Amino acid sequence: MPDHVYKHIELTGSSTENLEQAIRNAIQRASKTVKNMRWFEVIDTRGHIENDQVAHWQVTLKVGFTLES
Amino acid sequence: MPDHVYKHIELTGSSTENLEQAIRNAIQRASKTVKNMRWFEVIDTRGHIENDQVAHWQVTLKVGFTLES
Amino acid sequence: MPDHVYKHIELTGSSTENLEQAIRNAIQRASKTVKNMRWFEVIDTRGHIENDQVAHWQVTLKVGFTLES
Amino acid sequence: MPDHVYKHIELTGSSTENLEQAIRNAIQRASKTVKNMRWFEVIDTRGHIENDQVAHWQVTLKVGFTLES
Amino acid sequence: MPDHVYKHIELTGSSTENLEQAIRNAIQRASKTVKNMRWFEVIDTRGHIENDQVAHWQVTLKVGFTLES
Amino acid sequence: MPDHVYKHIELTGSSTENLEQAIRNAIQRASKTVKNMRWFEVIDTRGHIENDQVAHWQVTLKVGFTLES
Amino acid sequence: MPDHVYKHIELTGSSTENLEQAIRNAIQRASKTVKNMRWFEVIDTRGHIENDQVAHWQVTLKVGFTLES
Amino acid sequence: MPDHVYKHIELTGSSTENLEQAIRNAIQRASKTVKNMRWFEVIDTRGHIENDQVAHWQVTLKVGFTLES
Amino acid sequence: MPDHVYKHIELTGSSTENLEQAIRNAIQRASKTVKNMRWFEVIDTRGHIENDQVAHWQVTLKVGFTLES
Amino acid sequence: MPDHVYKHIELTGSSTENLEQAIRNAIQRASKTVKNMRWFEVIDTRGHIENDQVAHWQVTLKVGFTLES
Amino acid sequence: MPDHVYKHIELTGSSTENLEQAIRNAIQRASKTVKNMRWFEVIDTRGHIENDQVAHWQVTLKVGFTLES
Amino acid sequence: MPDHVYKHIELTGSSTENLEQAIRNAIQRASKTVKNMRWFEVIDTRGHIENDQVAHWQVTLKVGFTLES
Repeated sequence: MPDHVYKHIELTGSSTENLEQAIRNAIQRASKTVKNMRWFEVIDTRGHIENDQVAHWQVTLKVGFTLES
Repeated sequence: MPDHVYKHIELTGSSTENLEQAIRNAIQRASKTVKNMRWFEVIDTRGHIENDQVAHWQVTLKVGFTLES
Repeated sequence: MPDHVYKHIELTGSSTENLEQAIRNAIQRASKTVKNMRWFEVIDTRGHIENDQVAHWQVTLKVGFTLES
Repeated sequence: MPDHVYKHIELTGSSTENLEQAIRNAIQRASKTVKNMRWFEVIDTRGHIENDQVAHWQVTLKVGFTLES
Repeated sequence: MPDHVYKHIELTGSSTENLEQAIRNAIQRASKTVKNMRWFEVIDTRGHIENDQVAHWQVTLKVGFTLES
Repeated sequence: MPDHVYKHIELTGSSTENLEQAIRNAIQRASKTVKNMRWFEVIDTRGHIENDQVAHWQVTLKVGFTLES
Repeated sequence: MPDHVYKHIELTGSSTENLEQAIRNAIQRASKTVKNMRWFEVIDTRGHIENDQVAHWQVTLKVGFTLES
Repeated sequence: MPDHVYKHIELTGSSTENLEQAIRNAIQRASKTVKNMRWFEVIDTRGHIENDQVAHWQVTLKVGFTLES
Repeated sequence: MPDHVYKHIELTGSSTENLEQAIRNAIQRASKTVKNMRWFEVIDTRGHIENDQVAHWQVTLKVGFTLES
Repeated sequence: MPDHVYKHIELTGSSTENLEQAIRNAIQRASKTVKNMRWFEVIDTRGHIENDQVAHWQVTLKVGFTLES
Repeated sequence: MPDHVYKHIELTGSSTENLEQAIRNAIQRASKTVKNMRWFEVIDTRGHIENDQVAHWQVTLKVGFTLES
Repeated sequence: MPDHVYKHIELTGSSTENLEQAIRNAIQRASKTVKNMRWFEVIDTRGHIENDQVAHWQVTLKVGFTLES
């Protein structure tokens, strides 16, 4: 690991199901253009309310990936 | 949205099941007296432990609702 | 409660399933040596990514327990 | 001032013009139901973007008012 | 406790005597309209100075109370 | 909105006029390469002083935009 | 002091009297098992309310002690 | 710049007009006794309310100036 | 108040008695050279421990005073 | 400087030598694809431990670069 | 890693030489009683001044180690 | 120590060499006008980049000194 350099990006994913799925959706979408993702950290957890129900969950992540040397 | 004013309140809900249900319980109870809730943000996540088990989950939310003009 | 003194420790648990199970794993392991745990607070939520999937969830907790007087 | 007790509320106002007007709109709307407002503190400044332009400014305030004794 | 929902309010109390009395004054005044207060957390501690003396102490509290179900 | 994923970038814009124009300058420049910007949040507000005058205003923003799915 | 290493622990003490006594109670209890305590820092100040009165004060401390070399 | 040492001071300026003028007033007043001011950072934005109107704007700044070597 | 500019300084006072006296000691000492002090805010509360007792209390304050125009 | 817009990225570099070299490694690697880097700010300092020794130092940076207009 | 539970401790090390050595001293001393240390994070960096020189450097660390299952 | 009052100032020093030297430069320059400096705390660590190299290191310190009574 000492010879790696990581770059971090910040993403928000959402899901109508639960918090874990909102995280998975963000990572799945990012994987189309970002390679070598290694970890994430939850920055913020939110949601939208419609008719007094949680309509969807929203999680903001910082994601780290290795820059190939 | 430009012509809306929002007010925020802070609530703690709890559940013996999981984090999402603690959030839903807080919103459901608040809906008895608060109308037009639009979003929430998780402020704090806690729980109580009994006999080395999580007895219930506790989530503190900031909830925003529109003030009708 | 007024006559109790609490000590806090900080733990990180992980799980391949979900956030709640990562918390339960940390508490279960700590219970081997720590008695009288009463509450926890989530400090940080992270995860590891392998092949564009969440490989495991990691939750850091502050746990409070009573010091017997 | 020593014999006053203040209560604080949190509001978000918005404006298509500028930041000061978003603050004034929040206070004007709140004054319909809240008396004796004395000060505010800016908590958060945001905005919405449409067609690469700032469509409206959004300011979140903490507002303090005296509770009459 | 699992079946309670709490609401939080923020108050500032003041006293010419000491910090504890400023807290008690805020709670006493709030009790005229708020029922079932259970805990408080100190958010901020300030004071006013007149003639190089502390003229009064000011403590801002977050107070939690149960919403009856 | 549930089926969107957002990415966030951080920018600093400046203006010799006022704070709002510094924000507009950052967004205008970013729009050359970033599509679908939806919101911004002010992270930091600074300025440079020359000859005891504010020479220019500097605002750091977090900007969110949708990743097309 | 350059040749000392300190370890920190976090404690919560409580008192029905005042904030200073809650701090003293935490230190007195910890002294049964921790030697060479040198300083503390207040992390959090809370209290419990019963019948609209402060029933007890609760102070959370970080305490530093020297590890003997 | 490598051979400069900066000192920082904290100021609050106010204005009945807008946020930018409150900043300019703080810098103008400080310039009577402080030389070589180079930058400022906004720490806090507040205001006083009278008769449901913003009576004046208050901005707290950290200001940096070079110490001549 | 709109035409005042405030400067802030940071001080630490200490006392063998209690927290309020540590604050008063800091203000009393500062009054020898600083005029027109108007308010303070508590930044940090600490103490030194000797022989398992609180030897003295230490409070760090931000103090605001008016710059005469 | 008033007519510049900056973009910020976040990087983690590591080194078996010391903190300064971890920072230089991150900047050197980023320079392969990022032009016009002007400043950095340290966000986080960490390290890995193997056999009770620091195996490598890890520094997370925010780096600002000018967007050419 | 999914089946590990980590515990964190907080330490302050010091050195008359530099920041890296203060960190190494804390870890070396802790290794006498703590096994399986894996990482550290710098929490705070301080120092003592004598005769206008840095007499020693002081670094506070959070250290994580695995609890064997 | 109980009978001392400390005042804190904030300084930024810089160096082309390393972080420790930037701190020493700030303290050395301040010693021309400030007596009885006792400790410092690192508030912020930054640097300037020229031609993809760290041109100089910049450290912002809070420095405490005793006010003679």
